[in-house]
Amino acid sequence: MSRLRLTISMSLDGYVAGPHQSVKEPLGIGGEALHEWVFPLAAWREPHGMKGGEVNESTPVVEHTLTNIGATIMGRNMFGGGPGPWNTEQPWIGWWKDNPPFHHPVFVLTHYPREPLPLKGGTTFHFVTGGIHDALEQARKAAAGRDVALAGGAQACNQYLKAGLVDEMLLNVAPILLGGGERLFDGVGSDLHGLRPVRTVATAKVTHLQFARR
Amino acid sequence: MSRLRLTISMSLDGYVAGPHQSVKEPLGIGGEALHEWVFPLAAWREPHGMKGGEVNESTPVVEHTLTNIGATIMGRNMFGGGPGPWNTEQPWIGWWKDNPPFHHPVFVLTHYPREPLPLKGGTTFHFVTGGIHDALEQARKAAAGRDVALAGGAQACNQYLKAGLVDEMLLNVAPILLGGGERLFDGVGSDLHGLRPVRTVATAKVTHLQFARR
Repeated sequence: MSRLRLTISMSLDGYVAGPHQSVKEPLGIGGEALHEWVFPLAAWREPHGMKGGEVNESTPVVEHTLTNIGATIMGRNMFGGGPGPWNTEQPWIGWWKDNPPFHHPVFVLTHYPREPLPLKGGTTFHFVTGGIHDALEQARKAAAGRDVALAGGAQACNQYLKAGLVDEMLLNVAPILLGGGERLFDGVGSDLHGLRPVRTVATAKVTHLQFARR
Repeated sequence: MSRLRLTISMSLDGYVAGPHQSVKEPLGIGGEALHEWVFPLAAWREPHGMKGGEVNESTPVVEHTLTNIGATIMGRNMFGGGPGPWNTEQPWIGWWKDNPPFHHPVFVLTHYPREPLPLKGGTTFHFVTGGIHDALEQARKAAAGRDVALAGGAQACNQYLKAGLVDEMLLNVAPILLGGGERLFDGVGSDLHGLRPVRTVATAKVTHLQFARR
């Protein structure tokens, strides 16, 4: 069975993006610091088209997140382009420009229909207006037996968590406070639906908490 | 210099007590689960007057929290007895009954004055109405060169964190959600005032994130 695997970086105070997100600050004020641990890694640079980089204790964790993934789901806020109907005159193609790092179909949760957006390197964005179950069904079909990644943001993750649809969860806890922004687990309640800790990897820059449903 | 050392257990969603705290559920609904990792430990049982218990990877972490502590600070909510003026007819002596596990002076932040309360085993509760700086000054004096423990709850910790007065912070992250309750870091902002990760200890039941100011 194709599994839904959530991967997200979170501050000590539970935010996955800082306050005041904007086109200039897509991760909100201070939000870049959530991901400082990942940028130097070769395992992160390679799918982003960059050479070189570090290998450290986080490497196998990042490699795992990229292994056996056939499709990705994300929220409209993570894809970007602002709230409301899509701008058809200057179509937004996502924060990643014309060659996104996914290299497989990506399903974007949105209230506004839009034609699929094929880009370079194998990434096609599909826009799903039917809600989280519809998106998961379409993503699983596209993944053709492989797993589905749930990439963010907070609202999309919280909907899937609340519905008990997440099979694996990797929280990359950064040793910072953001003091506001988009909070993981908001409104999720107290039920982890069988997600239990399976492994923790700690480095000076990040603590990886890995959970899975058995 | 005597250091202020915060130790607290927190859920994945950032709560240090569950919702609906009451005399029957002092840690709120589900809150006991925050501390499940510590109850079996010999290092925790001994100061609580119980024999036996486990030794595991959490043992040195707990032992460290008890080493070189000369006084403790806690909030009124953690000491208990309900909000408002103290009940003088049936005086509340704290959740720990007549032989508390502290064995040194404990300073309780409160808006309501009360005479010091000496109990068995070396614990005397002092009630401080002058605010967090006053309590820290009194606790440091009582600690006579040793460190001061900051034990909780959330509001007391958040006040000290916001004021930049915490020198060491140990977060014991339990792999649970509480979905509501008392939240650590609420209102603290984004400044950790120089607290940086120094060590992480992971077990199947808890992840200990240790921070210190250099």
